Amino acid sequence: MGALRLHSLTSIFAASSSSSSSTTISIRSVFRQRHHRLRLPPRRLTTVSFSAQSTAEKDVPKQTEEQKSKVQDRVITPRSQDFNAWYLDIIANAELADYGPVRGTMVIRPYGYAIWEAIQDYLNVKFKETGHSNMYFPQFIPYSFIEKEASHVEGFSPELALVTIGGGKELEEKLVVRPTSETIVNHMFTQWIHSYRDLPLMVNQWANVTRWEMRTKPFVRTLEFLWQEGHTAHATPEEAEKEALQMIDVYTKFAYEETAIPVIAGRKSKSETFAGASKTYTIEAMMGDRKALQAGTSHNLGQNFSRAFGTQFTDENGQRQHIWQTSWAISTRFVGGIIMTHGDDAGLMLPPKIAPLQVVIVPIWKKDDEKTGVLSAASSVREVLKAAGIKVKIDDTDQRTPGWKFNFWEMKGVPLRIEIGPRDVSSGSVVISRRDVPGKQGKVFGISMEASSLVAYVKEKLDEIQSSLLGRATSFRDSNIVDVNSYNELKAAIGDGKWARGPWSASDKDELRVKEETGATIRCFPFEQPEGRNKICLMTGNPAEEVAIFAKSY
Amino acid sequence: MGALRLHSLTSIFAASSSSSSSTTISIRSVFRQRHHRLRLPPRRLTTVSFSAQSTAEKDVPKQTEEQKSKVQDRVITPRSQDFNAWYLDIIANAELADYGPVRGTMVIRPYGYAIWEAIQDYLNVKFKETGHSNMYFPQFIPYSFIEKEASHVEGFSPELALVTIGGGKELEEKLVVRPTSETIVNHMFTQWIHSYRDLPLMVNQWANVTRWEMRTKPFVRTLEFLWQEGHTAHATPEEAEKEALQMIDVYTKFAYEETAIPVIAGRKSKSETFAGASKTYTIEAMMGDRKALQAGTSHNLGQNFSRAFGTQFTDENGQRQHIWQTSWAISTRFVGGIIMTHGDDAGLMLPPKIAPLQVVIVPIWKKDDEKTGVLSAASSVREVLKAAGIKVKIDDTDQRTPGWKFNFWEMKGVPLRIEIGPRDVSSGSVVISRRDVPGKQGKVFGISMEASSLVAYVKEKLDEIQSSLLGRATSFRDSNIVDVNSYNELKAAIGDGKWARGPWSASDKDELRVKEETGATIRCFPFEQPEGRNKICLMTGNPAEEVAIFAKSY
Repeated sequence: MGALRLHSLTSIFAASSSSSSSTTISIRSVFRQRHHRLRLPPRRLTTVSFSAQSTAEKDVPKQTEEQKSKVQDRVITPRSQDFNAWYLDIIANAELADYGPVRGTMVIRPYGYAIWEAIQDYLNVKFKETGHSNMYFPQFIPYSFIEKEASHVEGFSPELALVTIGGGKELEEKLVVRPTSETIVNHMFTQWIHSYRDLPLMVNQWANVTRWEMRTKPFVRTLEFLWQEGHTAHATPEEAEKEALQMIDVYTKFAYEETAIPVIAGRKSKSETFAGASKTYTIEAMMGDRKALQAGTSHNLGQNFSRAFGTQFTDENGQRQHIWQTSWAISTRFVGGIIMTHGDDAGLMLPPKIAPLQVVIVPIWKKDDEKTGVLSAASSVREVLKAAGIKVKIDDTDQRTPGWKFNFWEMKGVPLRIEIGPRDVSSGSVVISRRDVPGKQGKVFGISMEASSLVAYVKEKLDEIQSSLLGRATSFRDSNIVDVNSYNELKAAIGDGKWARGPWSASDKDELRVKEETGATIRCFPFEQPEGRNKICLMTGNPAEEVAIFAKSY
Repeated sequence: MGALRLHSLTSIFAASSSSSSSTTISIRSVFRQRHHRLRLPPRRLTTVSFSAQSTAEKDVPKQTEEQKSKVQDRVITPRSQDFNAWYLDIIANAELADYGPVRGTMVIRPYGYAIWEAIQDYLNVKFKETGHSNMYFPQFIPYSFIEKEASHVEGFSPELALVTIGGGKELEEKLVVRPTSETIVNHMFTQWIHSYRDLPLMVNQWANVTRWEMRTKPFVRTLEFLWQEGHTAHATPEEAEKEALQMIDVYTKFAYEETAIPVIAGRKSKSETFAGASKTYTIEAMMGDRKALQAGTSHNLGQNFSRAFGTQFTDENGQRQHIWQTSWAISTRFVGGIIMTHGDDAGLMLPPKIAPLQVVIVPIWKKDDEKTGVLSAASSVREVLKAAGIKVKIDDTDQRTPGWKFNFWEMKGVPLRIEIGPRDVSSGSVVISRRDVPGKQGKVFGISMEASSLVAYVKEKLDEIQSSLLGRATSFRDSNIVDVNSYNELKAAIGDGKWARGPWSASDKDELRVKEETGATIRCFPFEQPEGRNKICLMTGNPAEEVAIFAKSY
């Protein structure tokens, strides 16, 4: 195996947040001292210190040897008590990520990165199936490029990181560290595309991007993040529109089928449309605190960038025309979405299809003469599952009790646990527990160790967990969306922390008013519209063609 | 399929270089006008313009419509005539890469990126098998980190790109865009590692890195490039040494088995050791012009970084000790190595194991009534090969002649070509040509279309090509290494453009003298040393324990 290394679980975020609805992370170099439900067994803790820009390690308060070896409790704040603190605790305890030395940056640790790799593996196949090729564009973009598309520069210039010195010299033109690549893509497309025979041109890149965000939160909003960005060029507006819709559909299926997140797909309002796009499609996910997370977007860019960059082609009639474009992206933010959709007080809960580890085997023995038999049985169970393509690991350390291990792997969100003790060895059976069903209810005794039946059982349970997580998240989502027909109803729903869905044909100004007065924005006009016509705008009383969904968001 | 999109072959580098041994690329916005052997059919050409820092597209001279549609010959400079021009022509014509708008940056196009993906796929498996996990460190490093390790700062500070402005404000501390990650890795390791139980810690990341190089060349040396960088921490110097050797061994096997490049593995001399390492191991490859390419390195970092960053652990006896570390990397430079090892006057020649496309099928018909049968046979041949895991594509456009297609796919380096005409359909057979054996000699008629025999034949031929390329490169390498016993012999060998191998125990100063007088450096002290003792240093006449290999290099 060796795919996962989990042995260095020794650091913890020391975070304090004043309110659960705040997206700010205030990190202090103090240990968190609270009373909590879940206490994991003693672990060594260390402190980390963060301050804007001042980042050298000399700023980190040194601990004494005594402090370092001091026994501390590892705790996860209950989700209901403080959602934000719970989220940060999970990221620290499950070793998904850590803060980098520069404010707002994130180190993605192996367990978190393995989730990202599962996302990449799935999407890469889908992108290729739909005719896209991977490639790579440079991350340094001449500053002048960003200024070419008017709304693009407006949207991005406050967030830029600029390289001004290279090789010891001041540069003549500042370089932008890419916040997104439309401008450099168009610069290259202009050189590659000449005639309709060069179209469609459909590419994707996996890359890091930088946006100088003021308020950051691991995975959800970081100064640098990882993503894929697709870029396509077409001969007609119809093809570009079809592509933009196709890709939001790929994302929607991905969210439902792989991550068990019942996103709502739809169109962004004008004011929430991507800087430079004609239309933005989005998938919006409801987190455990009922805030919305924009989990992926697909933009129909129209001819906005091709006009700015002069990207033209000669059509079949010999006429020069500007190309029609799309771009679409999913980022490491999705990992945050998975945590905040499925996790509970015990920690992370991972959908089997994207879990780095699907089954953990905990061998149990008391006497030394039991150990050999138990470990040998555990080992053959592992081989059987591994051969069936199941991601499995044995936790056979003798430095921890079985109870400690149960808690630990639950906290890490592993979907299934297999326990094997001396009696199980005698009876040729194992005990299997589901992460998503706590306590005795989720525990089944006497599952035969016989290879084919064990594999069938495990696969069936993994499928059940996958759909159970989706079902649970869907119920949660649906019970927290309120249909509203007036602004008062909207305000009440948002005030209750829910999403509001209602007919909308009012102005951008009215949309802004809702945001200012309630904190909620239009997440999307969902593709799935309620049946029945004659809708009346909840704000103006005028006829409305569509319902919109309003919610507070990350 | 859809894995590869090759339709936009419409741009070409317009490069001029004064000498084949120059590593400088001088790009002019002129069409190249030369007389060449290989002429591909007419293609549209465009110009590209590059100047240091001034990069906006307004600087690109606009072509008239007339120029754009003008018929031009697509040409590849013969390799023997001008190796550097040949290399750039291949990169342009095979659409492996293009220049980015910022001096020295490179756009990796789908066909070039697919080679990189093949490299990633292989190495990812090997890294995980040897116990490493992927993760991700931020690319922005506080400037103060770089200064902590004395030789590291000396080695890297001339090459740094610095972010000085973020979110519209001047930063208090400049940020380095990572040239390599040892410093930030150590900053994090210091937080994660506490006791011997946390060791070994073995991680890898796939990332972009930036080095402000003055002389750039696509793939070989670019301002930004892609690589993997492994970082490990150990409790003992022996373990670190074992790891550094293990990883250079992984690289060596990769080079031989996947890319058919017979690298020579060995240890770098002190003056060529990585900035901050105790020892650097390297694999050195001989390019078609007999210059050496350093294709991968593995460093035993000793305690240099752990002392600079205070990265300590408590050992089994309760004593605090600094950790022992390694780092190792392979980059997109390897793609350049593949081109320059195997390519010939007809273009690229790709080893089957890393070729994005292993077989191209060219259907041949004259009359319309032949077309259906030929295309249907081509299609079933494709399905048969695809089902056997072979990367295959049909080129069925009717805008090009078969002859044009033969040249085109040879230029793209596809290992095998299958031709299917009306007679082949009648006889149930195909014609198969090898890329590595030109003309009639490489062409075999009457290979049965019957699925199992066709698959077996194709697989056998792909294997043959793979080992034939390795054999050819090995012969070339061995016939160009001269054993020398004196400085005069060394100078003569280098003067002939060859590599010189001879006993060496002289000083750093003598090594510098060789470099200044011959242009050659010690590439490595190879692991495989000639038998027999009592070696005498070629420079000083003193006893020498090892032979060193000297060569000019990229």
